[in-house]
Amino acid sequence: MSEALTEVLAFFEEWKPSLPAMLTSMEKRFTDQTVWENVGLSKTTGFAEAKAFMDGFAQMYPIETAEVIVHHAAAHGNVVLTERTDNFFDKNGKQIVSIKLMGVFEMDGSKIVAWRDYFDTAKGF
Amino acid sequence: MSEALTEVLAFFEEWKPSLPAMLTSMEKRFTDQTVWENVGLSKTTGFAEAKAFMDGFAQMYPIETAEVIVHHAAAHGNVVLTERTDNFFDKNGKQIVSIKLMGVFEMDGSKIVAWRDYFDTAKGF
Repeated sequence: MSEALTEVLAFFEEWKPSLPAMLTSMEKRFTDQTVWENVGLSKTTGFAEAKAFMDGFAQMYPIETAEVIVHHAAAHGNVVLTERTDNFFDKNGKQIVSIKLMGVFEMDGSKIVAWRDYFDTAKGF
Repeated sequence: MSEALTEVLAFFEEWKPSLPAMLTSMEKRFTDQTVWENVGLSKTTGFAEAKAFMDGFAQMYPIETAEVIVHHAAAHGNVVLTERTDNFFDKNGKQIVSIKLMGVFEMDGSKIVAWRDYFDTAKGF
């Protein structure tokens, strides 16, 4: 498995325990230049903007834990393409958000240079 | 380059000349079981249903030619993941539809077993 793919799969694992764990992982892996885009919905640059977006998301949904189901993934050099279902659960373990999506990651070692997720935005989250 | 990726890139090239060329290519590469999904928007099985969807698309937009810009692509076995911009033009060469998307193809030789595209459906086409 390529280093880039290994790092992306590790990133998904880091989300699971809690929303703060996800933010800690994003802070570790984002640089000030990391461009994170939910295509058609949001585009942030750097961790501070990404955190502000996540804070808004968490205000809409009381997320406690997460699960990333990777259906397919492949890497070409430092670019990783994924097809996933991202699930988020409240403190009672009830699933409150489920997103079918594809996402692409441009990696530099453990750092995320760019991350774009594509999904059916009409459904909202 | 993997055979699956080669076939998918060839499929994109086959779209370019005209809408009938795209339909001919789809008929050649689809089986009766091919599941084509525009996630959140449409899901068809087999070529006949796919053609009916494309006919509806063509009624909305007078498509004459197409262009598929592949930003990133990678294969894992028979599965090909792509990040693309799909552009469609009218008979005067004017761009009338442009879709930023990611798509996954499950291939069997030159045949498409399953094809799922993900994009910002809120924008429509």
